[in-house]
Amino acid sequence: MEKLYKIAIDVMGSDNGPKTMVEGAVKALCENENMGAVLVGDGDAIRAALASFEYDEGRVEIIEAADVITNYDNPAEAIMRKRDSSLVKALDELKRRDDIVGLINAGSTGALLVGSAIYLPTADRQRPALAAILPAEKGGYVCLVDTGANIDCSAAQLHAFAHMGAQFMRDLYGIDEARIGLLSNGAEETKGNKLVKETHQLLKNDEALNFVGNIEGTNALSGDCDVLVADGFAGNQILKNTEGIAKRIIKDIVKYSKKTENPEIMKLVGHLMGMYDFNSLGGAVVLGVSKPVVKAHGAANAESIVSTSTMILNIAKNKAVF
Amino acid sequence: MEKLYKIAIDVMGSDNGPKTMVEGAVKALCENENMGAVLVGDGDAIRAALASFEYDEGRVEIIEAADVITNYDNPAEAIMRKRDSSLVKALDELKRRDDIVGLINAGSTGALLVGSAIYLPTADRQRPALAAILPAEKGGYVCLVDTGANIDCSAAQLHAFAHMGAQFMRDLYGIDEARIGLLSNGAEETKGNKLVKETHQLLKNDEALNFVGNIEGTNALSGDCDVLVADGFAGNQILKNTEGIAKRIIKDIVKYSKKTENPEIMKLVGHLMGMYDFNSLGGAVVLGVSKPVVKAHGAANAESIVSTSTMILNIAKNKAVF
Repeated sequence: MEKLYKIAIDVMGSDNGPKTMVEGAVKALCENENMGAVLVGDGDAIRAALASFEYDEGRVEIIEAADVITNYDNPAEAIMRKRDSSLVKALDELKRRDDIVGLINAGSTGALLVGSAIYLPTADRQRPALAAILPAEKGGYVCLVDTGANIDCSAAQLHAFAHMGAQFMRDLYGIDEARIGLLSNGAEETKGNKLVKETHQLLKNDEALNFVGNIEGTNALSGDCDVLVADGFAGNQILKNTEGIAKRIIKDIVKYSKKTENPEIMKLVGHLMGMYDFNSLGGAVVLGVSKPVVKAHGAANAESIVSTSTMILNIAKNKAVF
Repeated sequence: MEKLYKIAIDVMGSDNGPKTMVEGAVKALCENENMGAVLVGDGDAIRAALASFEYDEGRVEIIEAADVITNYDNPAEAIMRKRDSSLVKALDELKRRDDIVGLINAGSTGALLVGSAIYLPTADRQRPALAAILPAEKGGYVCLVDTGANIDCSAAQLHAFAHMGAQFMRDLYGIDEARIGLLSNGAEETKGNKLVKETHQLLKNDEALNFVGNIEGTNALSGDCDVLVADGFAGNQILKNTEGIAKRIIKDIVKYSKKTENPEIMKLVGHLMGMYDFNSLGGAVVLGVSKPVVKAHGAANAESIVSTSTMILNIAKNKAVF
């Protein structure tokens, strides 16, 4: 039998419950024959959910966890105290076992970040960042980092984000010299707040980076760079505003379509929802850790578990991260 | 004869040249019978442009200016030294004359801000801010302040922006207790960078403000607030990202439409361009000055001069600002 790439899936703590997470895992197994799933959480719920599907039992493992970390828990406290939680158990398995190549979670982002930093530190013990992989207007993807894990940042942190993003785009897409852009309020070197101006100099003077300069909000996702560096506050605005505006325009079109009752327009809506549905785009990726960790949307559907699994498998196959 | 509300229009320094500015002024005069236009700039160019249109000569005044401030000039230096420039002459007329109620310019934003601060200070000599008036998803408008005039801000500045925005929404739309929102990375009071957390407390404890709390990027333009307060860096991201994503989706639709060759979809594109064309939405407004000053887009077309004129006339008629 071929080697399995096993992914730890924390089935607890998501908005839609363990059944959706298990359904996503089963679908991901169907689509990827060399994948294994390590389902972590309430054993009864997992077994009940599995009973509704057909799947290859040899590729599924269940790890029972009696506790759950919720969005109401203090992230750091929960990671330290809730030793029987599905997230802590999943992180522990991921850390100890070479056959597990990554982790998916759709619960507390804060706990996932704290837990990843504690269980999966890199050699230089940098603070993890949260990246979003978004479709670029010119094709391909933009890795936006940070999207909200680090709200108040130093220039040295933004500099580290650039390296993390470049490494990730190499691991996932084989991009050798990722083009690094810096989110600013103008393309010129003199534009930006104090943080951005200071970061600009660090990026410009780092010969290991392919720095392409400042990028304005208008072109954040145009594809003029592969990695867009921002502090977590500004990156969060780009991510959420893009999502908000896309949803709003799609709603506008639906309203307009009802007026005209044109079936072609409804097809167009489907097409746009496919392009701008961030739920299915692979979730947020934790960067600056020793193994791939992906945060699926709290309201993740089965499809988003499939796409996050595929992302982790691709990284594992590229064998670049460990 | 009824009293004319005269608007100083600096016809120089825009991307499309004096002719487009004059065309916009003439159209605005046609649509508003109690408006007067004070056209400031190269007299020959203004007269040549006017010759192509029919207009009421009694409502047009020309003020010759031999010099122009361009985007290549240092704003502060240009305002101090280029005394014969169209912008300095226009600001000077606006300051001295009671019959001129506002100013439109489509040239250097920096020079307009510096010039406004010098020629039109408020009693407390606050730093002017640049606001955008954007259509809200739920109807009405959101005043986003600041959009890029003040990149590194203090909490006291953001607090002042809230008051400026509230005053402007009163002046323009007669909104009595404008709902003030604060752009953040989460709705909870504890979310935000240091600046936002500090500002949150100032806004919350100011009984003169109707503060509705933090607003996330997803809902920046939803209409949950009338005034959205942000530092100029973050506000610039919201403004430009919204513009970029809207343009991108419209392009997506055009591409899709070419595939299907459906005329209804082309009509939809027209409908969306009308809603998201920021060029025609009234431009950026300088807040924190003693008379209405509007910065039309550098690439302003005649229609945007009409809409900015209408905005100034509405404020003048509400007689709230002076």
